[in-house]
Amino acid sequence: AQSSVTIFGVMDVGVQRLSNGGKNLSLVSIDGMQTSRIGFRGTEDLGNGLSASFHLEGAVGPDVGSGGDWRRRATVSVSDKAAGEVRLGRDYVPTFWNISRFNAFGTNGVGAASNLVYGFDGASSTAKTVIRSDNSVGYFLPSNLGGIYGQAMMAAGEGSTGKYVGGRLGYAQGSLDVAGAWSETTNTAAGTKFKVGNLGGSYTVDAFKLLGLYHVSKQATREQTNWVLGGTYTQGAHVLRFSHVRSKNRDSANGSDYSGKLLALGYVYNLSKRSSIYATTSRVQNSATGKFLIPGGSAVLAGQSSTGTELGIYHSF
Amino acid sequence: AQSSVTIFGVMDVGVQRLSNGGKNLSLVSIDGMQTSRIGFRGTEDLGNGLSASFHLEGAVGPDVGSGGDWRRRATVSVSDKAAGEVRLGRDYVPTFWNISRFNAFGTNGVGAASNLVYGFDGASSTAKTVIRSDNSVGYFLPSNLGGIYGQAMMAAGEGSTGKYVGGRLGYAQGSLDVAGAWSETTNTAAGTKFKVGNLGGSYTVDAFKLLGLYHVSKQATREQTNWVLGGTYTQGAHVLRFSHVRSKNRDSANGSDYSGKLLALGYVYNLSKRSSIYATTSRVQNSATGKFLIPGGSAVLAGQSSTGTELGIYHSF
Amino acid sequence: AQSSVTIFGVMDVGVQRLSNGGKNLSLVSIDGMQTSRIGFRGTEDLGNGLSASFHLEGAVGPDVGSGGDWRRRATVSVSDKAAGEVRLGRDYVPTFWNISRFNAFGTNGVGAASNLVYGFDGASSTAKTVIRSDNSVGYFLPSNLGGIYGQAMMAAGEGSTGKYVGGRLGYAQGSLDVAGAWSETTNTAAGTKFKVGNLGGSYTVDAFKLLGLYHVSKQATREQTNWVLGGTYTQGAHVLRFSHVRSKNRDSANGSDYSGKLLALGYVYNLSKRSSIYATTSRVQNSATGKFLIPGGSAVLAGQSSTGTELGIYHSF
Repeated sequence: AQSSVTIFGVMDVGVQRLSNGGKNLSLVSIDGMQTSRIGFRGTEDLGNGLSASFHLEGAVGPDVGSGGDWRRRATVSVSDKAAGEVRLGRDYVPTFWNISRFNAFGTNGVGAASNLVYGFDGASSTAKTVIRSDNSVGYFLPSNLGGIYGQAMMAAGEGSTGKYVGGRLGYAQGSLDVAGAWSETTNTAAGTKFKVGNLGGSYTVDAFKLLGLYHVSKQATREQTNWVLGGTYTQGAHVLRFSHVRSKNRDSANGSDYSGKLLALGYVYNLSKRSSIYATTSRVQNSATGKFLIPGGSAVLAGQSSTGTELGIYHSF
Repeated sequence: AQSSVTIFGVMDVGVQRLSNGGKNLSLVSIDGMQTSRIGFRGTEDLGNGLSASFHLEGAVGPDVGSGGDWRRRATVSVSDKAAGEVRLGRDYVPTFWNISRFNAFGTNGVGAASNLVYGFDGASSTAKTVIRSDNSVGYFLPSNLGGIYGQAMMAAGEGSTGKYVGGRLGYAQGSLDVAGAWSETTNTAAGTKFKVGNLGGSYTVDAFKLLGLYHVSKQATREQTNWVLGGTYTQGAHVLRFSHVRSKNRDSANGSDYSGKLLALGYVYNLSKRSSIYATTSRVQNSATGKFLIPGGSAVLAGQSSTGTELGIYHSF
Repeated sequence: AQSSVTIFGVMDVGVQRLSNGGKNLSLVSIDGMQTSRIGFRGTEDLGNGLSASFHLEGAVGPDVGSGGDWRRRATVSVSDKAAGEVRLGRDYVPTFWNISRFNAFGTNGVGAASNLVYGFDGASSTAKTVIRSDNSVGYFLPSNLGGIYGQAMMAAGEGSTGKYVGGRLGYAQGSLDVAGAWSETTNTAAGTKFKVGNLGGSYTVDAFKLLGLYHVSKQATREQTNWVLGGTYTQGAHVLRFSHVRSKNRDSANGSDYSGKLLALGYVYNLSKRSSIYATTSRVQNSATGKFLIPGGSAVLAGQSSTGTELGIYHSF
């Protein structure tokens, strides 16, 4: 049964200083650049442009030695060069990819835009489909469409919550990459829907890359709108990263609107293509009733700010 | 410490429609052909026909990304070509192999005979040794006995339940393969024993393979008898599968006898030796007080029927 | 992302007979020679004597098929041949290495000195840092210091208990190896410290290796002092092992002093460098109020003795 199975992964550990509402905490932090993980994957060429493949990937917590499941991705696929890929299992939802690709810190570390975007009430805590979905059937466009790329996903609620439908369509050519995505999850037994829509893009000019994202999350009477603007500047082994996020949360049922913003600056020194040392500092500021923060420490009181600084080692294999 | 470790596994995901007693459910299902898994194994040649080997294998749930243990098999062995193999750890019980080998759908999917066989009260729910046993010491006959094969297993109860003793003996030559197996597990603190006996065989004529199994499970006053008859027809990449199961459950203590039968039909298209697309449909019918069903959906009321249809992708690596 | 990832591990299973205070138990035991495990590790050469590396290792329980985390070690490192190694993640504490290296049975099996040493009240049960620490930042001296080796570790308590600081310094040259280590863990919210200090060494004369260890554990008013003396004799594939441990436990708060001793004898037959068959027998004797024992069976009453005998297969890969 042996075949060419590829073992791959990331180990990313650092030290972090968090200050939430004035309460300080020193941590050994993980995942400042990318989420620590281990995975196995392989592709079998079936001839005539057809292939079968699998992907198993699970998170690792090198700070405490946790791990063991494959909840980052567990899929089997049949792909055709002309017709595209059918993928079954637990996988990323289409709407995730714009948050991940179109901001300078991705979804990792103190500077991540997701620190605010995932802060949506009912999103990070109750929605099952913010990042990934169980029980999914996905379809991916083939790669020969002149820069157009896209995917669609459905997931069975299996008699409970989590019934999902979503899609993503993008265009990447030369220095430009833009994509939009949309999804709907039946999120409660009563049928309330968690909806996400986003539009993002990046544009590269020489050593500069500019990234922008507009992201909206809705559930029942609540809605959060996020604007993300970021950039990277690369000079040899040195990379500077910058990100600014503005998030506005509204609840028409009780009128409790609030907003927050995040400003992050980072430096990466690439030891090689696979290994880096990085430093990031980030500050979250809230409106009078806002409670956005950098996760990992204490909660903040309304209006308090949150700052985090981390220094870490990133290694991929 | 590096050596030739083999990574192997199965990813098997599909879509399924279950109808139990009229209640319908749509699922992303797994394991319709074989149980999804990942494992590591290796053998060290010690010279003079002696070898040491290990096998670690754990189930994977690609629908939800579950996994992490090695409860399918975790063993270390010392083998001698002439004297056989001593194997220690968690392993399959001898009685399992006849259910697995001598019916057309093995123990996987909506058409599996095990859907009825494992339905024995006190078997699938309370017995620790229906499929595998913890704490086992096993012995396997060498492979040079002119077609005779066999194994014996003991497992320590370790002061609690699960003390097991069992064996299997078979003969495979040319188109014929027959085997019988028997086991006894001390299944309660009071010393009640869970007993299994089975006898199965297969016979291949050209493209046809006929399979039959007789399987009895007993515990205290309860007893379940099962007859399984099945067949496969292979033409190039196409395989047709058929299975019929009849199960009779008796409880002499309260006279609540009931019976059920399963009829399954399946089609497999082999994309390669390692990958397939498959479809199976199966119907379970109960006597007036029977509650046999295809697992995964609602329970059935006494006498109700259960039907399941699935379409999936199987890929091994 | 693929690179030269090494898969490695140990599978060690045997049968054991334990007699604690006269209560007998037969077990399928594991880890009599070394802890069963599986791991992945790799090193990337960054040039100029610099390298990045990772190590993921988790325990396996082949008796029941358990496993799944990486709590034996989960680290990422940057190393310089001249300046040493910085290592982050979950790792062994410096004080562990002397118990592991300087006694004839390491920390495994019925004969292990750790059966008494880890018996320290508040050590094995409440201290997080007897063997390993979460959230650690470690530094290791380079290997070119003429036989001097050493390491230091700090671990963040992260606002809770487990704040650790410790170090180890040793000298290995020819047949001699000696090392001392010391550590302090803030072990309760009140700030009480768990302190460990030890000094060990080994000396090899032809086929004989003599090993000695002095180990002290303290917490609040309690203190345990241990003396370990052992030896091995190797003749071709045959190895004899011997160990004697004396442990004294004092609690100045209530004057409940007690002591225990362990005497162990073992034989290993090496089938190869990677595989062995082993047998060990060990007896623990207590003073009138002592409750030291070989773990895995019943507790002993004060003053009772504990004996264990095991026979196992060890295989590494």
